[in-house]
Amino acid sequence: MAESGLVEQGTPIAETRRRQIEGVASALFRERGYAGTGMREIARGLQLRGASLYAHVGSKEDVLFSIVERAADRFATAISPYLHADGMSAESRLRGMIRAHVLVLTDDLEDATVFLHEWRFLGPERRARILARRDNHEQAFRDSIAAGTAAGDFRLVDERLAARSLLSSLNGIAGWWRADGPLSADQVAEAYADLHVSGLLTEASARHSGRFQR
Amino acid sequence: MAESGLVEQGTPIAETRRRQIEGVASALFRERGYAGTGMREIARGLQLRGASLYAHVGSKEDVLFSIVERAADRFATAISPYLHADGMSAESRLRGMIRAHVLVLTDDLEDATVFLHEWRFLGPERRARILARRDNHEQAFRDSIAAGTAAGDFRLVDERLAARSLLSSLNGIAGWWRADGPLSADQVAEAYADLHVSGLLTEASARHSGRFQR
Repeated sequence: MAESGLVEQGTPIAETRRRQIEGVASALFRERGYAGTGMREIARGLQLRGASLYAHVGSKEDVLFSIVERAADRFATAISPYLHADGMSAESRLRGMIRAHVLVLTDDLEDATVFLHEWRFLGPERRARILARRDNHEQAFRDSIAAGTAAGDFRLVDERLAARSLLSSLNGIAGWWRADGPLSADQVAEAYADLHVSGLLTEASARHSGRFQR
Repeated sequence: MAESGLVEQGTPIAETRRRQIEGVASALFRERGYAGTGMREIARGLQLRGASLYAHVGSKEDVLFSIVERAADRFATAISPYLHADGMSAESRLRGMIRAHVLVLTDDLEDATVFLHEWRFLGPERRARILARRDNHEQAFRDSIAAGTAAGDFRLVDERLAARSLLSSLNGIAGWWRADGPLSADQVAEAYADLHVSGLLTEASARHSGRFQR
């Protein structure tokens, strides 16, 4: 955790403080953008003076990196059970991954939005690290699509474009879904899984899964 | 055009100047974010002093609004031929709209990115106007999907979610496509049209269009 850049670490109180700081910062970054948010505003949101904030946090970029890295952790953890689920059909695997991704997004919209849009304001090194993690995540979806094609369940598509299209579509959910809206996160996850999987199934698999009976 | 907020208007020179200002501003907004860009940087990019810029432009928000509104115009114009194309099949219409949307995006990645991500920094009134235009655009895709279902070409889906998923997927292209990359804008537009239309076609339409022969 040394790379998270937070000065005071390792105790439960420090951890609680860190979460508070990141919660306030994440809401501000989402609302005003990273560039439009100062350490002073973050401190004010915590009822601290600006100088006191630096006892907890090295810099604004450290806070951004910590938020973005935790979000990357959550996405990776959520899809990991599906990556080597050998007994599972390609369709079930991809559905599980879509569902897991959507539930991480909707579980914390602020962090997700910062992860999706503000990560590009990181410095070059940290930006490259987050980019590598985003690439890994995309690769997992690509592999899942390719495995489905190899198994004869999915049609032959450019899995690189299919994975990008899929992830952009899912990430868009953070822009319009609201916890108090008409659709639950589960309903959205299921509907998106249906839309995307339907576009990939071969005729035989589609018949089998009842797609054309609807 | 009074609402574009630009002070000097109506002459070819003013129009050229406006485009130059917006070009520089759009590149800066994309790179640093709207909040992270000052009028001073925009002026510097044009080799003007800050004060001179105000002879051409009322405020930074005016420049943002003008960029965003022009982008909204281009998207609306691009899909308009398909909105009342009565002789066209649902599949051809939706393909045409997808293609048109992708080509506007890729034609000016800077303006497109500002349109997609920075519009939320507009003041409440202008933000509401742009939101209404985004809603109209989404509605056009929704109507196109619903018309395909009514004609028996597309399966029954929640056309609201299908349109959102589709547009999020297309808009994601602005995040990774590059003019000097391996795929032309046309190739990407065709591939995305295939992916999305395949997910919507009924069995009979899919057979007819040869989807399962691939």
